[in-house]
Amino acid sequence: MTTDPLVVFTPSGKRGHFPAGTPILTAARQLGVDLDSVCGGRGICSKCQITPSYGEFPKHGVTVAEGALSEWNAVEQRYDDKRGLKPGRRLGCQATVQGDVVIDVPPESQVHRQVVRKAAAARAITMDPATRLFFVVVEEPDMHSPTGDLERLERALREQWNIDAVTADLSLMSKLQPALRKGKWEVTVAVHKGHKDTVARVVEIWPGLHESGLYGLAIDLGSTTIAAHLTDLETGEVKASSGLMNPQIRFGEDLMSRVSYSMMNPGGDKEMTRAVREAINDLITTISDEAGIDAALIVETVFVCNPVMHHLLLGLDPVELGQAPFALATSESMSLPARELDLTNMNPRAQVYILPCIAGHVGADCAAVALSEEPGKSEDLVLIVDVGTNAEILLGNTTRVLACSSPTGPAFEGAQISSGQRAAPGAIERIEIDPVTKEPRFRIIGSDHWSDEDGFDKDIATTGITGICGSGIIEAVAEMRIAGLLDESGLIGSAEQTGTIRCVPEGRTHAYMIHDSSAEGGPRITVTQGDIRAIQLAKSALYAGARLLMDEMEVDTVDRIVLAGAFGAHISTKHAMVLGMIPDAPLDKVSSAGNAAGTGARIALCNIAARSEIERVVREITKVETAIEPKFQDHFVAANAIPHKTDPFPELSQVVTLPNPSFNTGGESQAGSGRRRRRRG
Amino acid sequence: MTTDPLVVFTPSGKRGHFPAGTPILTAARQLGVDLDSVCGGRGICSKCQITPSYGEFPKHGVTVAEGALSEWNAVEQRYDDKRGLKPGRRLGCQATVQGDVVIDVPPESQVHRQVVRKAAAARAITMDPATRLFFVVVEEPDMHSPTGDLERLERALREQWNIDAVTADLSLMSKLQPALRKGKWEVTVAVHKGHKDTVARVVEIWPGLHESGLYGLAIDLGSTTIAAHLTDLETGEVKASSGLMNPQIRFGEDLMSRVSYSMMNPGGDKEMTRAVREAINDLITTISDEAGIDAALIVETVFVCNPVMHHLLLGLDPVELGQAPFALATSESMSLPARELDLTNMNPRAQVYILPCIAGHVGADCAAVALSEEPGKSEDLVLIVDVGTNAEILLGNTTRVLACSSPTGPAFEGAQISSGQRAAPGAIERIEIDPVTKEPRFRIIGSDHWSDEDGFDKDIATTGITGICGSGIIEAVAEMRIAGLLDESGLIGSAEQTGTIRCVPEGRTHAYMIHDSSAEGGPRITVTQGDIRAIQLAKSALYAGARLLMDEMEVDTVDRIVLAGAFGAHISTKHAMVLGMIPDAPLDKVSSAGNAAGTGARIALCNIAARSEIERVVREITKVETAIEPKFQDHFVAANAIPHKTDPFPELSQVVTLPNPSFNTGGESQAGSGRRRRRRG
Repeated sequence: MTTDPLVVFTPSGKRGHFPAGTPILTAARQLGVDLDSVCGGRGICSKCQITPSYGEFPKHGVTVAEGALSEWNAVEQRYDDKRGLKPGRRLGCQATVQGDVVIDVPPESQVHRQVVRKAAAARAITMDPATRLFFVVVEEPDMHSPTGDLERLERALREQWNIDAVTADLSLMSKLQPALRKGKWEVTVAVHKGHKDTVARVVEIWPGLHESGLYGLAIDLGSTTIAAHLTDLETGEVKASSGLMNPQIRFGEDLMSRVSYSMMNPGGDKEMTRAVREAINDLITTISDEAGIDAALIVETVFVCNPVMHHLLLGLDPVELGQAPFALATSESMSLPARELDLTNMNPRAQVYILPCIAGHVGADCAAVALSEEPGKSEDLVLIVDVGTNAEILLGNTTRVLACSSPTGPAFEGAQISSGQRAAPGAIERIEIDPVTKEPRFRIIGSDHWSDEDGFDKDIATTGITGICGSGIIEAVAEMRIAGLLDESGLIGSAEQTGTIRCVPEGRTHAYMIHDSSAEGGPRITVTQGDIRAIQLAKSALYAGARLLMDEMEVDTVDRIVLAGAFGAHISTKHAMVLGMIPDAPLDKVSSAGNAAGTGARIALCNIAARSEIERVVREITKVETAIEPKFQDHFVAANAIPHKTDPFPELSQVVTLPNPSFNTGGESQAGSGRRRRRRG
Repeated sequence: MTTDPLVVFTPSGKRGHFPAGTPILTAARQLGVDLDSVCGGRGICSKCQITPSYGEFPKHGVTVAEGALSEWNAVEQRYDDKRGLKPGRRLGCQATVQGDVVIDVPPESQVHRQVVRKAAAARAITMDPATRLFFVVVEEPDMHSPTGDLERLERALREQWNIDAVTADLSLMSKLQPALRKGKWEVTVAVHKGHKDTVARVVEIWPGLHESGLYGLAIDLGSTTIAAHLTDLETGEVKASSGLMNPQIRFGEDLMSRVSYSMMNPGGDKEMTRAVREAINDLITTISDEAGIDAALIVETVFVCNPVMHHLLLGLDPVELGQAPFALATSESMSLPARELDLTNMNPRAQVYILPCIAGHVGADCAAVALSEEPGKSEDLVLIVDVGTNAEILLGNTTRVLACSSPTGPAFEGAQISSGQRAAPGAIERIEIDPVTKEPRFRIIGSDHWSDEDGFDKDIATTGITGICGSGIIEAVAEMRIAGLLDESGLIGSAEQTGTIRCVPEGRTHAYMIHDSSAEGGPRITVTQGDIRAIQLAKSALYAGARLLMDEMEVDTVDRIVLAGAFGAHISTKHAMVLGMIPDAPLDKVSSAGNAAGTGARIALCNIAARSEIERVVREITKVETAIEPKFQDHFVAANAIPHKTDPFPELSQVVTLPNPSFNTGGESQAGSGRRRRRRG
């Protein structure tokens, strides 16, 4: 029977008896308690802070007396003088067990701390990145038993941190000798070990203790936009988010036109590769400046992207992705040095991880959505639609997950829309049309007021009203349909037919005038017949893709729908359903997940187990190819009507009653059929 | 009891029963017989050629009837028409077993064929290089079960060649899709897998069957010269050998002066790194041109070099190697892509292997000598001296091996010698001095005649007599000592003292005139007192190093001596001993091994097991540091005399009687003592 003091750790509940004098950090390690330490217990990194609790703890069956821990010591005093310890805190490596004690490990002292996502469906990310910091004391060289400095660093990592099999690039090795001597044989190293690596790699070295952290980038590389999140690899905190337009747009707006560019122009793929890599380098500089962080501290980057962007990022000609059988050069996840992608504006030894592609048309971005939204863990049947220039669609539950992509084109991102623009201050993002007066009211990005409210004019004084963004155009078209300005086939009525002078003639068709500041030299913001056609093409492609998956699953309805995408959080689910972007479902079962692909990238950045997980999931997903499936064309044509020619929308009907005018005077043929063109992007 | 036919393979003697109709290649594989095949039995590579034997074979207990193999078939006929098969040969993948048969596998059909070295101590190298060719048939892509082309290539390598875990660089991946389609899904790949790799790497791909071979370079990167052997990785044949001066000489002749250059000039190490890498790139182009081989077929390079060259090649500042404790940045062997060393004039995915360093002063070149000469496998105690600007010295037998290096300086390579030059046509390489007349006769490189023979004048018509190379200066100094022109202390006598007018005054000292063509505007070739001093410094350093190892081994004599080095094969062992370069030993126990370091590099190039072997051996070698050992200085001073001040040379005395003049008239102090300077090179 032991008489050693009992140590109980919270929140884990792990407990054990330890001889008096055992440091708390040692006890924690022996019990497998998740207590951080970079310096290995040398009292200099402060990562192992703990809070002892005193008094009676019936739950743990223990009473903690005043002297349960050793006295505050000189090391703690020095640290407190220099940096300040929070009240009640102790350094786990200095405080030793003297009697029974209850020790709380605060979240910031846990290695595998959890970061709760802000999104509605809150899900915690457990921090377990591929690259971490270790402080080591390295043996000095001995002429009589000669070994290399690298070999002695390896031994230190093995003995002090149980890290076996370490290697280092030449560029790191050239920093090794000066750093060891400057740090007087004490250094901090950043060590990268991916989930498939048998060997760990030293990616950075600093003399002494490095306290400026380590960072990673999660990048959603879209056809139209590139979005990055700069993330603290210790805390998981997003320090900055930034984005820019994909400069490849100048080679073609959608993916197929970029593939064509490569086919028609020898070396065109190289040109596009160079362009996107330069843009990413610029983005890295911008985002690290924004966060006030030295870009050399960025040691990891995770990419998610569609297959064409995947190939162009990697410097692979995407030509095979332009034609059946849409063969990828490689479909597996990739882990490679950033410098091989010419991404040189961060740490020169930064590592890149790219999620696996699902198929020739279904990319790593879709894999990232699957990682973020986890359809395979859903009990009810969930349809996940990631809206972008190319839509990624997932349908599944615990029994099976299907995936496809659908070429919606950039209309949903405000491109190919006459008054369209990127989501930026001045852009109309919400709109309502009075069903009686047919008058619009709207809100713009940058103002909390509706256009008919006091304060609106003041808000827009600097930005003006400049155009309509992606979510705005969806609302505008849906509102026009609800207000009877647009018939089921997608035709805009004339002023006579609709009873409002806002329906203005434009050539042989009509447009709806939302805002006209042309008298003051400002823009004239309208929704044109052409805009409607572009939206119809996009939404039909989206719907047809979803239907194809439902056919494969042999269902006519789904239990719930998740709208994702760069602007997924901003889409009004009701308006999306009026438009017929998504199948009929109870509105309270339709939710927005924001940029699920970007979230998936961030998960893979922060947790290497998630990388193994998504690689496994991707292998199990059933891939559905839309491009050569004749039924896709049928679904596409039927989906051209707003909301749909044949599919009933009973759930929608309970919320919205759609008028049923017909503006077809024979002047314009039925839209969509026959005009369909194959497009990726 | 089986009634299947018996197949006996020679020379292995492996045998087994196989059903009629079994291809010989299949039988060989099942028995583990070493029969090559690149195409995997498809009848197109011809690597599996075998020779059936007919008649009675009492030794094998078998009689082979005429129809023991299947008839010559159409595939063999086509191959024979196109390329020609040697008489009696069959293709092992086409000929099938029909009855008991004896099959001979000719050497060129063995994968692990043996290459016998030309050197005296013939030792076979078993071919087992890290990079080999494989022909594979890859499955075509299927849209309904999408996988990447790389993943299908991986599967083909796994299923057809049992090669697991394959990866490829981006630059290879960009060639993958076109090659697969051009080859109609049949390709040849070069796959590299080092002895420590868990993953194999596809380094090159060709549509269809690649028949132009694969090559590797073994490079001995010395302080003064860089020597390369271009080797066929299938046959082991050396296709070309070439060398050039190390351009770093302009930064310093010996290693310590290069280290100083780096210390005194910021960025000086980078300059030297750039210079040597450029020179190696030039050498690659030269040697592949010389062999008439596409440099892109060079997929591997093995380097051996001393520690300072090792660091400069790798781009590591050698500054730590200039001062105790002589810490290497890394001592282990290295395997890395050639492009990381900017060696771009060969295959862009070529791999480099660098042998391990033994200590801060004892490099990978010494490891290569150990690999080539195997002192640890010697029953008798062998001293191996690798003569260069820096000498590598090994002493050992099966019980223990010791190693050190000694800074001889470049005198033995003809540098720092007044009439010295590189070993090239026109250089005096052999010399004899008549002990009575004191007249010299000599031979030059490029002529088979001695200078007093008919035909000599004709031979030298184009080259002239230009100087003395390394082996020539050793002979000249030793001959001068034998002829009584030089006393034990190293002083050259005057014409009066020696009785020959060839001893000419030069300042306050004398020089020996070997050849004077100054009347015709040619050179005046002499051995000056300064030359003698340079040789004395060099040979004393060599001898002192050897003695230090003998002290450590607690012996006064060794059983045998091996002289190695770029000109090791050319050194007269007798003259080396008269000079006191090496300890006394029976002359028939002193042999020359030629460029043992270069041979070690070639062994490591051709056989990956040799890499594991030398890494193990290096760990077991006892390193002796000469730089800080006070006894080294004592040995050095004592070794200044020719052959030695105190050590007896009884074995030498039996062959040569040295006269014992003394030319010291007080005009010159004893040479050597007090003049010693620390030098590495």
